[in-house]
Amino acid sequence: MDKLDKKAINVSKRLRGKIAIKPKMRIRSFDDFAVIYTPGIAAVSREIISDRSKASMYTYKWNTVAIVTDGTRVLGLGNIGPDAAMPVMEGKALLFKHLGGVDAVPITLGTTSIDNIVETVKAIAPSFGGINLEDIESPKSFAILERLQKELSIPVWHDDNQGTAAAALSALINALKIVNKDIKSIKLVMFGAGTANLSILRLLSKYGLGKSNAVVIDSKGVLHKGRADVEQLKSSNPQKYEIIGSTNRYNATSIEEAISGADAIIAASVSSQGTLKGEWIRKMNSDPVVFALANPQPEISKEEAQKAGVKIFATGRSDMPNQVNNSIVFPGVFRGVFDVQARYITDSMAIAAAEELAKYAEEKGLSTTNIVPRMDDYEAFYRVAAGVGVQAFNDGATENKASYEELYDLAKQFIEKSRH
Amino acid sequence: MDKLDKKAINVSKRLRGKIAIKPKMRIRSFDDFAVIYTPGIAAVSREIISDRSKASMYTYKWNTVAIVTDGTRVLGLGNIGPDAAMPVMEGKALLFKHLGGVDAVPITLGTTSIDNIVETVKAIAPSFGGINLEDIESPKSFAILERLQKELSIPVWHDDNQGTAAAALSALINALKIVNKDIKSIKLVMFGAGTANLSILRLLSKYGLGKSNAVVIDSKGVLHKGRADVEQLKSSNPQKYEIIGSTNRYNATSIEEAISGADAIIAASVSSQGTLKGEWIRKMNSDPVVFALANPQPEISKEEAQKAGVKIFATGRSDMPNQVNNSIVFPGVFRGVFDVQARYITDSMAIAAAEELAKYAEEKGLSTTNIVPRMDDYEAFYRVAAGVGVQAFNDGATENKASYEELYDLAKQFIEKSRH
Repeated sequence: MDKLDKKAINVSKRLRGKIAIKPKMRIRSFDDFAVIYTPGIAAVSREIISDRSKASMYTYKWNTVAIVTDGTRVLGLGNIGPDAAMPVMEGKALLFKHLGGVDAVPITLGTTSIDNIVETVKAIAPSFGGINLEDIESPKSFAILERLQKELSIPVWHDDNQGTAAAALSALINALKIVNKDIKSIKLVMFGAGTANLSILRLLSKYGLGKSNAVVIDSKGVLHKGRADVEQLKSSNPQKYEIIGSTNRYNATSIEEAISGADAIIAASVSSQGTLKGEWIRKMNSDPVVFALANPQPEISKEEAQKAGVKIFATGRSDMPNQVNNSIVFPGVFRGVFDVQARYITDSMAIAAAEELAKYAEEKGLSTTNIVPRMDDYEAFYRVAAGVGVQAFNDGATENKASYEELYDLAKQFIEKSRH
Repeated sequence: MDKLDKKAINVSKRLRGKIAIKPKMRIRSFDDFAVIYTPGIAAVSREIISDRSKASMYTYKWNTVAIVTDGTRVLGLGNIGPDAAMPVMEGKALLFKHLGGVDAVPITLGTTSIDNIVETVKAIAPSFGGINLEDIESPKSFAILERLQKELSIPVWHDDNQGTAAAALSALINALKIVNKDIKSIKLVMFGAGTANLSILRLLSKYGLGKSNAVVIDSKGVLHKGRADVEQLKSSNPQKYEIIGSTNRYNATSIEEAISGADAIIAASVSSQGTLKGEWIRKMNSDPVVFALANPQPEISKEEAQKAGVKIFATGRSDMPNQVNNSIVFPGVFRGVFDVQARYITDSMAIAAAEELAKYAEEKGLSTTNIVPRMDDYEAFYRVAAGVGVQAFNDGATENKASYEELYDLAKQFIEKSRH
């Protein structure tokens, strides 16, 4: 156990948890409850009865997200269940607050079935302004996200899906600027076919990537039409099945074939060095771009990647340059979504977030070790919030029109306040 | 709209809700997240994986209750749904914090079916240390409470059930001391056969009331074996059906018969003056005790009750003497339950709470207008917590044995801290 581990345990133990429910006002004496509880509170309920939309003006739910997990794929720890997932979800709630000014409530579920998760979230949805799905294993995470987005009229976000995808897109946009390549024509190889990579592929494709120029590799090798498990995937993993049909126009069947001439690699697979080999990077096109996103250990070490001639290298780690992590995305996304009270979150809104991040990093000065904003650069979150809020209106997700500047100021004010 | 109503609306509107999720620690910079989130947090999860019981030492859930409602019977407002129920639940969360030092999360449900409510609460239960059911209509509230108590291994409490019952019991214990009557032999008449009164009757019977000496009156009149709807109640309202068989040994069929010679009346029915008539009180035994608990309007005005010769009069109102309200009970109950980490709450624990309240009011000096502690007397909550914690051990609900004094000090310290 290293020093950081011990510190983490000590903090959790000493405080017995990291979050608390607190009043927004100072309660001076019990008499105040005549206003904040009965009998006065009945008047607030009556206002909402006469106009349900007032629920988001008069209650805390307008700014509150449920962090929902079944604990089946938590960090690098895997399927650890709801109890062991709680400390992580509490930490996530603190990120929501500190970086987005959002109130977040951890909901760790005692069920892992798709139907039960969907029904449970639907049942508790009136308590919240949005749903953040978290650390739910693939492929069921796709079905849960899709159904909830369809059946609820509040924003539903799966952070390992849209969040990770937006973070990767922002990094790729800037990486391609540096190596002067067009996303439309690059050959992209992806290691891992879980929630993260399949979502990244979807978002990149919507942004302009030629999807057939991508080759996806899972634990059994390259996804191609000749694989023995193609028919089986049709029912067991429809997302992967779809990928087989729409990617790999090269009909590559081996990793070597896949990687030959590739412009970029995005790995979001198993956390162990050696998943990506230096010799493969040597087979890539000029100016190789490699994102090794597994945490805590990237799929290849920085040293080995550099030895193999990588031009731009990014990981998920905070102690290395170019951290690609959804934490740079979700706080601003929910800030923006809540500030305009959007009813849903579109992929265009995730792309807007990615573009904001890319643009901001560019303003600060692009280089091979500076393609994304740093997590402690709070400015990034205000910009994401503003960009997402504007896009929400353009996408018809809200009737509340506000300018980028207004939303930026609002977000900044709100996030700064919740930080102090 | 009166002044209080306007104030309540203004506060909710200005703050956009009354509760917030906040960190327990000061977050100085983004670097702190290495300890309170990844990578450090994985060590905390690993500790819980190796010993699940550590979840209550390392996460906030040990002290956190879900306030669960479907909004079907909120205050005097009736079936107003989850959106309009939220301001009330937020107020309740503030009471939990201010009076009990408990973190409480409002869960307003989008479903009203017994099965869905039970399944939803079971699914989210791993997120919480306890469940507080709130404002769910009768008779389904009984089935929901019973099933959840059976199927969950965390404390489940229905505040309109055990909470109201304990408050009424504490008041009755002291009222009977003043009029010098024995609960075993009094004749009790109850107006209303909803969650409150049926629960009060259950708890009073466990405490010593001769159940057959009680007569219960619902909106259709006196519950007796000759009623036309007896067979129908068997399935539609099993609780009421059971009452018919076990109460009213006098075979009273009219209100006049029921009330003649009664020692006490407990009304928890419809909020409108005139439900209880002065002429009925005149037909009671000497030193009549009348609890008119409907809110905001008691079933009979204090003036009319006094004119009719009432000896001890109690209501649910905070602006009148002898307020009988579950808010004097639940904060201390959950404080005590959480401090010993009890797995369930028994009726004996509710009785222990009632006895603590009665004893404390007696210590302060009993009189016809001082039979229960006042809500702003924080000492009452520490005592309830200690009494409940001791009883939890005696009932086998926990292995954590602590003395009354230890639990009292712990509760006091905790509640005082959360108030400041």
